Amino acid sequence: MPLKTYEQYLESLKNLRPNIHKFDQLIEDVTTHPATKRTVEGHGWTFKAAFDDKYKKTLTTESHLTGKTISRYLSIIQSAEDMYANSDMKRLMFHLTGTCTGGRCAGWSALNAMFITTFEMDRDLGTDYHPRFLKWLEDAQERDITISGALTDAKGDRTKAPSQQEDEDFFLHVVEKRDDGIVVRGAKVMICGIAAANEVFVIPGTAFKEGDEKYAVAFVIPKDVEGLTIVETRHPSDKRDEESGFDNPVTEGGITQAYLFFEDVFVPKERLFMCGETKYTGSNVGYFVMPYRAAIGGCVAGQGDIKIGSAILTARTNGLPSKVFKDKLVQMNINNETTFAVGIASAARGKKHECGAWLCDPLLSNVNKVHVATLPYETSVLAQDIAGGIAETGCMPSYQDFHSEKYGHLIQKYMKAKHSAEARARAARLVEWCTLGGGVPGCMHGGGSPDGAKLFIKAYSELEKKVEISRRLAGISEEIPEPGK
Amino acid sequence: MPLKTYEQYLESLKNLRPNIHKFDQLIEDVTTHPATKRTVEGHGWTFKAAFDDKYKKTLTTESHLTGKTISRYLSIIQSAEDMYANSDMKRLMFHLTGTCTGGRCAGWSALNAMFITTFEMDRDLGTDYHPRFLKWLEDAQERDITISGALTDAKGDRTKAPSQQEDEDFFLHVVEKRDDGIVVRGAKVMICGIAAANEVFVIPGTAFKEGDEKYAVAFVIPKDVEGLTIVETRHPSDKRDEESGFDNPVTEGGITQAYLFFEDVFVPKERLFMCGETKYTGSNVGYFVMPYRAAIGGCVAGQGDIKIGSAILTARTNGLPSKVFKDKLVQMNINNETTFAVGIASAARGKKHECGAWLCDPLLSNVNKVHVATLPYETSVLAQDIAGGIAETGCMPSYQDFHSEKYGHLIQKYMKAKHSAEARARAARLVEWCTLGGGVPGCMHGGGSPDGAKLFIKAYSELEKKVEISRRLAGISEEIPEPGK
Amino acid sequence: MPLKTYEQYLESLKNLRPNIHKFDQLIEDVTTHPATKRTVEGHGWTFKAAFDDKYKKTLTTESHLTGKTISRYLSIIQSAEDMYANSDMKRLMFHLTGTCTGGRCAGWSALNAMFITTFEMDRDLGTDYHPRFLKWLEDAQERDITISGALTDAKGDRTKAPSQQEDEDFFLHVVEKRDDGIVVRGAKVMICGIAAANEVFVIPGTAFKEGDEKYAVAFVIPKDVEGLTIVETRHPSDKRDEESGFDNPVTEGGITQAYLFFEDVFVPKERLFMCGETKYTGSNVGYFVMPYRAAIGGCVAGQGDIKIGSAILTARTNGLPSKVFKDKLVQMNINNETTFAVGIASAARGKKHECGAWLCDPLLSNVNKVHVATLPYETSVLAQDIAGGIAETGCMPSYQDFHSEKYGHLIQKYMKAKHSAEARARAARLVEWCTLGGGVPGCMHGGGSPDGAKLFIKAYSELEKKVEISRRLAGISEEIPEPGK
Amino acid sequence: MPLKTYEQYLESLKNLRPNIHKFDQLIEDVTTHPATKRTVEGHGWTFKAAFDDKYKKTLTTESHLTGKTISRYLSIIQSAEDMYANSDMKRLMFHLTGTCTGGRCAGWSALNAMFITTFEMDRDLGTDYHPRFLKWLEDAQERDITISGALTDAKGDRTKAPSQQEDEDFFLHVVEKRDDGIVVRGAKVMICGIAAANEVFVIPGTAFKEGDEKYAVAFVIPKDVEGLTIVETRHPSDKRDEESGFDNPVTEGGITQAYLFFEDVFVPKERLFMCGETKYTGSNVGYFVMPYRAAIGGCVAGQGDIKIGSAILTARTNGLPSKVFKDKLVQMNINNETTFAVGIASAARGKKHECGAWLCDPLLSNVNKVHVATLPYETSVLAQDIAGGIAETGCMPSYQDFHSEKYGHLIQKYMKAKHSAEARARAARLVEWCTLGGGVPGCMHGGGSPDGAKLFIKAYSELEKKVEISRRLAGISEEIPEPGK
Repeated sequence: MPLKTYEQYLESLKNLRPNIHKFDQLIEDVTTHPATKRTVEGHGWTFKAAFDDKYKKTLTTESHLTGKTISRYLSIIQSAEDMYANSDMKRLMFHLTGTCTGGRCAGWSALNAMFITTFEMDRDLGTDYHPRFLKWLEDAQERDITISGALTDAKGDRTKAPSQQEDEDFFLHVVEKRDDGIVVRGAKVMICGIAAANEVFVIPGTAFKEGDEKYAVAFVIPKDVEGLTIVETRHPSDKRDEESGFDNPVTEGGITQAYLFFEDVFVPKERLFMCGETKYTGSNVGYFVMPYRAAIGGCVAGQGDIKIGSAILTARTNGLPSKVFKDKLVQMNINNETTFAVGIASAARGKKHECGAWLCDPLLSNVNKVHVATLPYETSVLAQDIAGGIAETGCMPSYQDFHSEKYGHLIQKYMKAKHSAEARARAARLVEWCTLGGGVPGCMHGGGSPDGAKLFIKAYSELEKKVEISRRLAGISEEIPEPGK
Repeated sequence: MPLKTYEQYLESLKNLRPNIHKFDQLIEDVTTHPATKRTVEGHGWTFKAAFDDKYKKTLTTESHLTGKTISRYLSIIQSAEDMYANSDMKRLMFHLTGTCTGGRCAGWSALNAMFITTFEMDRDLGTDYHPRFLKWLEDAQERDITISGALTDAKGDRTKAPSQQEDEDFFLHVVEKRDDGIVVRGAKVMICGIAAANEVFVIPGTAFKEGDEKYAVAFVIPKDVEGLTIVETRHPSDKRDEESGFDNPVTEGGITQAYLFFEDVFVPKERLFMCGETKYTGSNVGYFVMPYRAAIGGCVAGQGDIKIGSAILTARTNGLPSKVFKDKLVQMNINNETTFAVGIASAARGKKHECGAWLCDPLLSNVNKVHVATLPYETSVLAQDIAGGIAETGCMPSYQDFHSEKYGHLIQKYMKAKHSAEARARAARLVEWCTLGGGVPGCMHGGGSPDGAKLFIKAYSELEKKVEISRRLAGISEEIPEPGK
Repeated sequence: MPLKTYEQYLESLKNLRPNIHKFDQLIEDVTTHPATKRTVEGHGWTFKAAFDDKYKKTLTTESHLTGKTISRYLSIIQSAEDMYANSDMKRLMFHLTGTCTGGRCAGWSALNAMFITTFEMDRDLGTDYHPRFLKWLEDAQERDITISGALTDAKGDRTKAPSQQEDEDFFLHVVEKRDDGIVVRGAKVMICGIAAANEVFVIPGTAFKEGDEKYAVAFVIPKDVEGLTIVETRHPSDKRDEESGFDNPVTEGGITQAYLFFEDVFVPKERLFMCGETKYTGSNVGYFVMPYRAAIGGCVAGQGDIKIGSAILTARTNGLPSKVFKDKLVQMNINNETTFAVGIASAARGKKHECGAWLCDPLLSNVNKVHVATLPYETSVLAQDIAGGIAETGCMPSYQDFHSEKYGHLIQKYMKAKHSAEARARAARLVEWCTLGGGVPGCMHGGGSPDGAKLFIKAYSELEKKVEISRRLAGISEEIPEPGK
Repeated sequence: MPLKTYEQYLESLKNLRPNIHKFDQLIEDVTTHPATKRTVEGHGWTFKAAFDDKYKKTLTTESHLTGKTISRYLSIIQSAEDMYANSDMKRLMFHLTGTCTGGRCAGWSALNAMFITTFEMDRDLGTDYHPRFLKWLEDAQERDITISGALTDAKGDRTKAPSQQEDEDFFLHVVEKRDDGIVVRGAKVMICGIAAANEVFVIPGTAFKEGDEKYAVAFVIPKDVEGLTIVETRHPSDKRDEESGFDNPVTEGGITQAYLFFEDVFVPKERLFMCGETKYTGSNVGYFVMPYRAAIGGCVAGQGDIKIGSAILTARTNGLPSKVFKDKLVQMNINNETTFAVGIASAARGKKHECGAWLCDPLLSNVNKVHVATLPYETSVLAQDIAGGIAETGCMPSYQDFHSEKYGHLIQKYMKAKHSAEARARAARLVEWCTLGGGVPGCMHGGGSPDGAKLFIKAYSELEKKVEISRRLAGISEEIPEPGK
């Protein structure tokens, strides 16, 4: 059974060459450095849970390549049920870690997209990408690695095409083609969970047009490949990661997002899965976002569950029962279940691709993206509403003050309510953490913007069909075409 | 193949004893009377479509009792896929008729609920309801009848239990038990599509407690049974049903809802499926509302499609292209697909009952009910926004004025825009009809109120589990129970 | 005191030449014909209330021309307090009539706009419009007449300018200039309250450009002027106006909107207030919409109060106390007070024009227009939610059925709840009437569309100022101009 | 002219005994310590602006006691116009500082409330609080001091009255009465701007009942009074306050909120304005919240302006013009102007108290509180939507990394877009700062919770009047009283 233990996972990260930085310092060991250890612990739960009877059915599945039990994060999605399990797993991971474990899930979406795209390229162009990809995939399953997915380029001026930019590096591109591989330069930015990843799956972040061949490139590299410099970004209240105590209440979960700078990085041929095929970049983005935007409903619902739970906890420590907030709690549940359900429906209404992969419904997955970009914010507001002033902006003295020898006893005396001061503080800190602190994921723009999703919705909503249905009902015999067309 | 043709269906209605009234008059023939013919035509589409290659896969299915091809409206729902087809069929029927064909769908939900409940009663109590029910069902499938579902009692003072009411008739009940059947008295109110129905399936509308045995009664009767007096209710702009011309633009679709008065109606034993088993009334309501509240997302989406189409049509007749309204159209589509998708997800996450029926997920179906009670109203507002002042309240002269010999030419001259005055008028009338006219269905309270759904949501939302997940994340070791418990 | 009594008002309408039609029939007497008498009764309340100690302070004011007590509907708005009284009066009129009395209020806005515009034209161009206007106004005050305001042209293809239309009549225009006046042709459509008006104030509905002089025309005419043909439009459930009984529950209130066809109508010089001055048409629309969009918040709040009251009444007849719906009621009140308050604020933040008129704040009045186009719909949904299924679509048998000799006793027996069947029916019919029946005003597009208001908001929102404030705060020294400018 | 300069203000703070702590350290000088200097600088703008011709009319007014020009923050509000200036000043202060300057505004509301309450107590009880208060006020105006307002007690179990709490200190109370004053014990928590204040105005935070006399106490004390220990709370990303560079982009603005522990603090008689008069505590809370909840609309609008400006700035640095986001910008403006306008309307519809103070309309000010607790969150979401992924969670490398010698050039190269990397970073950091960073004010629970406001709304919304209006319109002759009453 090719499943790593938690300890083996930590070891695998320690074995990588240090190339991640934050605050102008090199992080020698991501498993212990305060800037990264929380996210590593969070990803560690994907390994612990795979061995836990309660969770393993959600975390693992059977490889369609080898028949072995593998991590679901390395599997090819082949049915609606696989997608339901995807939503369930993401919701569970938020339950276990409080936040996003993006160092496995975007990579999973990327490899699923490339499973289809390599198949299509080989089918149409006679290339040999698909078997090459399968070989890598089988090996990846065997090694049970964690894989970040890297799409977003630096992009420069948003109104210009790649070739019009003042610096060609604004989009990652091939600078040299060799017999044994290629050399690439550029950057991938805002890449989630890189600190917890063993490898990085790089795919084009947008649809490139003819003439932009050098940008149409997809590959996987070890995170510690030569020429790759990684800088972690900040997140809200990130300095608390360096503190001890409960002001950052979650220890086994955390988000990191990084900027990846590729300075002439070599990619060997056997890890190269697209090189110049611009025609396939648009559909490949689609193959990426469909399962991603379907299943992210599970993420948002999972964190929404914690917003509910932590808001109730805070209220209870104040002495207030849930019934006082029942309408708000119902609305929070509606929000959670809506993003969850629209994702499930996108899977249920999907269809099989000839390569064996399951394609989610594109209209519904993009509708879900818009919900994911709005509903969790309303849920956060409701959590703060229920939990009161101390949770709204985390309006409490620090952990250090809480234990001050001079006046800590005053804080503890006066923060006590129905329950102890510490229980109140921890509960309220958790609300703060997941509504405006370190636990807030980038669910609005992560995996693409809501405005981008709206373009998909417009494209897939069959307006002309609806016009014709209505024209018949209204008894209009005239043709009523779109003006100007 | 036990499928009636459209003509056979009309004939079957003509053959019934007239017992429906409106405006203090007896309706002799529901297929021709202006108050009922539009809804009959709408239901007629369920027969036409069953013979249409384009639609028949959606409208028919295989009987699990006989293996014959039957109307889907008479089938037992046995899988998630059956439920998807349910949603699709309902959306299609709104496309074909513009509105609700409730004279088949509530009956379908009722018979599916009683399929399960008769099984459970027999299993637990040793009764013989289930085979009796199956016998009736097989016959109903063979006759391809339309069946209204009747749940809502008169109810009297809403804060009192049935037995506390000043008049015991406020809830339909048994007044006499005979060897060959029972006699019932009371009323069922706001019953949809009765004019288009052959039979009426009566089930308890609420959970009755011990002591209320006489109210726990379920049965099917022919619509023209002796002792049953039916009065149609009004709906918005219902007097236009009597007019000719396009002020009521839809001719093959329409809603009716009726009050049914049972004055000592005899129900023969072979059509009696519950009699006194109060314990099963609560779960039976649940079995009714779960598929109903899941699939109503298809209804609302179907009418939403028409709101989109008719709003675009009106704008086009004014000369305006869709891109002017693109954000509004995207929002309308999001609303439509949300109710549709949450219903689909409720089916996808359902499970099999031991009797073979498919149970939708109760949390998701009730979440959908709340969406159905809110989102279509927003969609209506957007349709009126796009379509402009003439659609907002149907602010145009009447059809008679349109064709006035004195000044009709002025109306036609000045209502002309990018397209003819008639096309503009018809398009705007369709917007009016489905946003505040005769096509507005009772989607908020039909099949139960949103407040009722919120009670289900609260019950199924597992708050304590969410509290525990959050307590672990926050590192709180104290127990934090609900205050006052 | 130049105030007409209610009886004198009716008499003044009876004395006009009949020229209003509906359903291809001439309405001989608007005070008694079912299509118009409800709106006449509603407007009649403006006269009754002027003599009622409780209301007269709201309905009357002092003429700044003569010092006499006049109807507020004929006064020039000269202070913020005058505008507050405007909002209060509109809210009161909805309380008294249930709906819009637009046959006085749009005319009032029109005459206030022309008070300013005639002043500005005389000031800039040396014309004598202002004294001419004042002379008419003093006479109008003396006669205490009701005046409809007519802005909206037929407009033809919305993407074309007036001069590009295939028919020049699509915008009302001068066809002949004489020494003693002008002759006009065209149409004004969707004109509110014409049936209850003595005169009609016609002003340009849009900003005309140079070259479109013939369309830049403003004047007042008696409603029964030669050459003017009027056709009343339909409104939801308008056929109920012809019925007796409580299915249309409101007898002293109702909306009418009409199409006015001008076939070479002569306007004498002393009633002509603009003729060719295109440059002033844009600002004049602004002067019209500012007080209109401010005070319409009072209208919408007034009807919202009735939605609250009728929803509570219906619930109480069902036996349910308000506390069950307290959150919904609070939200309804918030919606009402928001439209009311933003209108008040628009007045409070206004300023004095040099001619003495009070100018409301244009940003706030247009913000209010958007609220008026959205919030009352949410309030309607909440009213239907509270009032239940019988109110949602008025799902009850007709008044005729209610009193049927054959089965009326059954309806009355079963519709009884905590209160009598009739009280329940009347309460629910009132909810129906003001949420999707005859009482629904055209508040979304009346007085201009929300999209038009958004253009104003964009124009008045000083984005560059906000950018500069933010640039300073962010410490950005670079200039950051709008791209492409 | 009793107006301090900015320098005199700083000096006045330096002269106070240090008694504020954070992170278990005593803050020796609030004007230089990183935890407090930003908020001091922000409050410093209230002094600078008072001397700036552009702003001084907004920041200063005439004392009604002495006729001298004083800070508006020390004035008694005597007219609607004074309240408009209040809203304007608050909006301006957010423009100048980016966030809340609560160390003057809550104190201002407190002293205005006590102006009325001392008057009422003297009038009813024959006490001499009012002249005592006026004497202090005149002196405070002369010294031009900054005054925090302190209402919120520790409160303990929220379901218990003060006298039922396990610790009587949970509400601040009198422990000793002396001839020359009183001694108090307890805590006031979440007190805004204490670091920037010279004095603290303490008033009861809730309505106390008979028997709770010891809690009914109001007074002003110097911030550095003996026995007062102050601990600053955390706020989002507060550790960035200690950093240099632009990751916390705003240097002259910042929020602090503190816990104040009173360990037997002596209050001299001349600073004591209530002592035991429980009957006046409820109305005094009302007098506090009415102007506070009206004017907070200006605060929220002011920060909303910055959300608009910083979102546009970020988009522009990406190359995107505002028109791409025009609907979102319009909605943001609507949100801003709504909270601003409802506050203005609350003032406009206010009335004069017999003591000379202006009372805002309680219904409208509480409606505004609910808007303030919801609309700014939607505005924040829209700002993040427009500004993109880097702003959503501030997803950029730190300032230190930006200037790293090793790889800073890569960050600067790849963050460049239409404008420089630094301009992009600063703009996006400002969005982050005011949507989920250090600039987020506690606008939901600050000054009381939205649920509390809803109770006021319910109380002031005159439901019975609305029921009666509707009963008349519906023609219902039966009385329809509230069930159960």
